[in-house]
Amino acid sequence: MSIALVIPDRDLSRLVAALQQHLPEVVIEQWPNINQPEQVEFAVVWKQPAGSLQQFPALKAIQSYGAGVDSILRDPHLPALPLSRIVDPKLAMAMIRYLDAVLRSYQLRLDQFARQQQLAQWRPRGPRPINHICVLGLGELGQAVAAHFVDEGFSVTGWSRSLKQLAGVQCFAGTDGFPAAVAAADLVICLLPLTSLTEALLNEQQFALFKKGAILINVARGAIVDDRALLAALDSEQLQAACLDVFSQEPLPAAHPFWSHPKVTVTPHISAVTNIDTAVNQIVENYRRSQAGTPLLHQVDSDKEY
Amino acid sequence: MSIALVIPDRDLSRLVAALQQHLPEVVIEQWPNINQPEQVEFAVVWKQPAGSLQQFPALKAIQSYGAGVDSILRDPHLPALPLSRIVDPKLAMAMIRYLDAVLRSYQLRLDQFARQQQLAQWRPRGPRPINHICVLGLGELGQAVAAHFVDEGFSVTGWSRSLKQLAGVQCFAGTDGFPAAVAAADLVICLLPLTSLTEALLNEQQFALFKKGAILINVARGAIVDDRALLAALDSEQLQAACLDVFSQEPLPAAHPFWSHPKVTVTPHISAVTNIDTAVNQIVENYRRSQAGTPLLHQVDSDKEY
Ligand SMILES: NC(=O)c1ccc[n+]([C@@H]2O[C@H](COP(=O)([O-])OP(=O)(O)OC[C@H]3O[C@@H](n4cnc5c(N)ncnc54)[C@H](OP(=O)(O)O)[C@@H]3O)[C@@H](O)[C@H]2O)c1
Ligand SMILES: NC(=O)c1ccc[n+]([C@@H]2O[C@H](COP(=O)([O-])OP(=O)(O)OC[C@H]3O[C@@H](n4cnc5c(N)ncnc54)[C@H](OP(=O)(O)O)[C@@H]3O)[C@@H](O)[C@H]2O)c1
Repeated sequence: MSIALVIPDRDLSRLVAALQQHLPEVVIEQWPNINQPEQVEFAVVWKQPAGSLQQFPALKAIQSYGAGVDSILRDPHLPALPLSRIVDPKLAMAMIRYLDAVLRSYQLRLDQFARQQQLAQWRPRGPRPINHICVLGLGELGQAVAAHFVDEGFSVTGWSRSLKQLAGVQCFAGTDGFPAAVAAADLVICLLPLTSLTEALLNEQQFALFKKGAILINVARGAIVDDRALLAALDSEQLQAACLDVFSQEPLPAAHPFWSHPKVTVTPHISAVTNIDTAVNQIVENYRRSQAGTPLLHQVDSDKEY
Repeated sequence: MSIALVIPDRDLSRLVAALQQHLPEVVIEQWPNINQPEQVEFAVVWKQPAGSLQQFPALKAIQSYGAGVDSILRDPHLPALPLSRIVDPKLAMAMIRYLDAVLRSYQLRLDQFARQQQLAQWRPRGPRPINHICVLGLGELGQAVAAHFVDEGFSVTGWSRSLKQLAGVQCFAGTDGFPAAVAAADLVICLLPLTSLTEALLNEQQFALFKKGAILINVARGAIVDDRALLAALDSEQLQAACLDVFSQEPLPAAHPFWSHPKVTVTPHISAVTNIDTAVNQIVENYRRSQAGTPLLHQVDSDKEY
C-alpha cells in the first residue's frame, strides 16, 4: 500500500518529508513517477491531469491538497470515490489578513493615489466610505471573514445556498436572496466555490444588482466572474474597482486586459495558501481513516460539487 | 474684540460657521480681509505669511490650526505670545488607520504586486515579514501609534527626547539612544515634530543605522528627511521602500523624483487631517482662556519648538 501525490508543477519536497515523518512505514510516490500504481490506495491531488487517477486500481479515497475541489472534479475520468478537502483555520486567518489589507487600502484610496502618483498629481481626499460589506459564500472561509468584519464594526450581509444564522450577519440564500444580499454593499467579497451553478454567476445581470460604485474582491475562483462583464461594469462605473486574486486561467495571460486596467488590482493567487503542516495532519488522518474504512474528515458532496 | 483666522488658501466657511455658532457675540475676521486689526485679540493660524500677525497690536494668544507648529514658528516676525496646538484623539485614530493600512499592504506586498502588474508579471510570494516597528517621536500621536502596534502583537521600540515609560514599548531617548531604537526595526515610522534639531535628521548617517532593507513611513514633516539621502538609501537597497505623506514642499513639485521612484509611495498629506469639530472646541476653549487670562490648553514650548 502507498500514497500517490498527483500535484503537477510544484516542489513537493517539504510535503513528502513531512508525510514520511508521520507515516514512516508508507511508500510515498510522486506523479508522474509512480513505480507501483497497483499499490496506491490513497491519492493527494491538485489540478491532476484528466484521467491520471485511473491508473490506480486499488485507490480508496482522494484528498484535495486545497480548500477548493473544482480543479479535481472537472476530470471526466475521476474515480467515484470519497473526496475530501482541506479545512484550515490558518487558511481563514490568511484570507482575513488579505481582505483586511485590501479593504483598508481601498478606504485610504491608496489605489487612486497610486494612479495619481503615476501622473505626478497631488489631489488630497478623505477616506472612501466603506460601511457595508457583502460576503458571497458562507462556508469555512466566508463565515470566518463575515465574523471578522462584524467584529470590526462593519454592517455585513451574507449569501449562501442554504439559509444561515450567523451572529451580526444579515443572511440571505439562493437565487431569490441574491439581490437583497448585494443591494447595499459598498464592497462585495466572493468566497463561493466554483461549481456548475456558480460558473460565470457574477455577470452583467448580477453586477446590475450591485450598489452603484461598489467594489468587488474575488478570492474564490476566477471562473465565477464573467471577465468581460466585469470590465464593462468597471468602464460604465457601475463598479468602482476590483481586486482579483484568482483568474479563469492562471498565471493570468500577459495579454489579458485585467493587467492594465486602471481600476483592477491583480494579485497572483496569494490570498490564502495551503499550510503544509495543517495539510499534512489532515492527510495523515484521512489516510488512516481510509485504511480503517471510517468516514473521511471534510468530505465533499459530489452532487453539490463542494 | 475679535478673532482673526490667518489660514491662507483654504475654504474656511465651515470653520467660520462653527465658531460663530459657539461664539455668536464675537466678530470672526478672515485674513487677508481684516476690517479692524486693532480689535483682534486671538488668532487661529496655519502657514501664515511672515509678519502677518504684526498687524494685531492687541493680540493675546495664537492658536495653531493643526497639531504641528513648525509652519507658524518659522515666521521671523512671530509675536512672542502664548502659542497652542490642536490635540485630538480623532487625529491619532486617523493616523493609526493610515499607518495600519500602509503596514498591511506592505505585509501583503501590494506594492511589489502593483509594480509587477504594470509589467504583466505573475510572481506569487508569501507575506513580507514585518515584526519589529520603531516609532520616532513619542508625543500625542507617536504614543497612540506605538500602543496600537503593541496591541496588534508587534515588537515595538520608540524614540523621543526625554526617556518615556510606555507599556510594551522598548523606549530610547536622545542622540545616543537612536541607533538602538532603529537597529532591529523592519519598519520605521517618523512622528517627530519639525524643529531645528530634527530638520534633515533622517540623513545618510542615520539611514546607515537602520536594519538593512527596512521600510520608512514619514507622516510627520517632509523636511525631517533628507530627500537625496533617502533616494540613495533606496537605490542602494539599504532601505526597501518608503511611504511618504509629507514633503519639504507641498504640493510635491511635479519634477520631484519621489513621484516616479518605484520604491516610493506618495500620498498627498492625507494621513490625519484636523477635525473641524474638535478644533472648534479647542479654539473656543482657548479663546475663553485667553480672555480670562488663564493658561491655554496644549501650549507649545517655544524653546523646544513643539
Ligand atoms: N484564493 C485562495 O487562495 C483560496 C484559498 C482557499 C479557498 N479558496 C476558494 O474559496 C472557496 C470557498 O472556500 P470555503 O472553504 O469557504 O468553501 P465551503 O466551505 O465549501 O463553502 C462554500 C459556501 O458557498 C455557498 N455556495 C455554494 N454554492 C452556492 C450557490 N450556488 N449559491 C449560493 N451559495 C453557494 C455554500 O452554501 P451552503 O453553506 O448553503 O452549502 C457555502 O456557504 C473555495 O471553494 C475555493 O475555491 C481560495
Ligand atoms: N501627516 C499629518 O497629517 C500630520 C497630522 C498631525 C501631525 N503631524 C505631524 O506629527 C508630528 C508629531 O505630532 P505629535 O502631536 O505627536 O507631537 P508632540 O506631541 O509634540 O510629540 C513630539 C514627540 O517628538 C519627540 N521629539 C521632539 N524633538 C525630538 C528630538 N530632537 N529628538 C528626539 N525626539 C524628539 C518629543 O520628545 P519628548 O516627548 O521628550 O518631548 C515627543 O515625544 C507633528 O509635529 C506634526 O508635524 C502630521
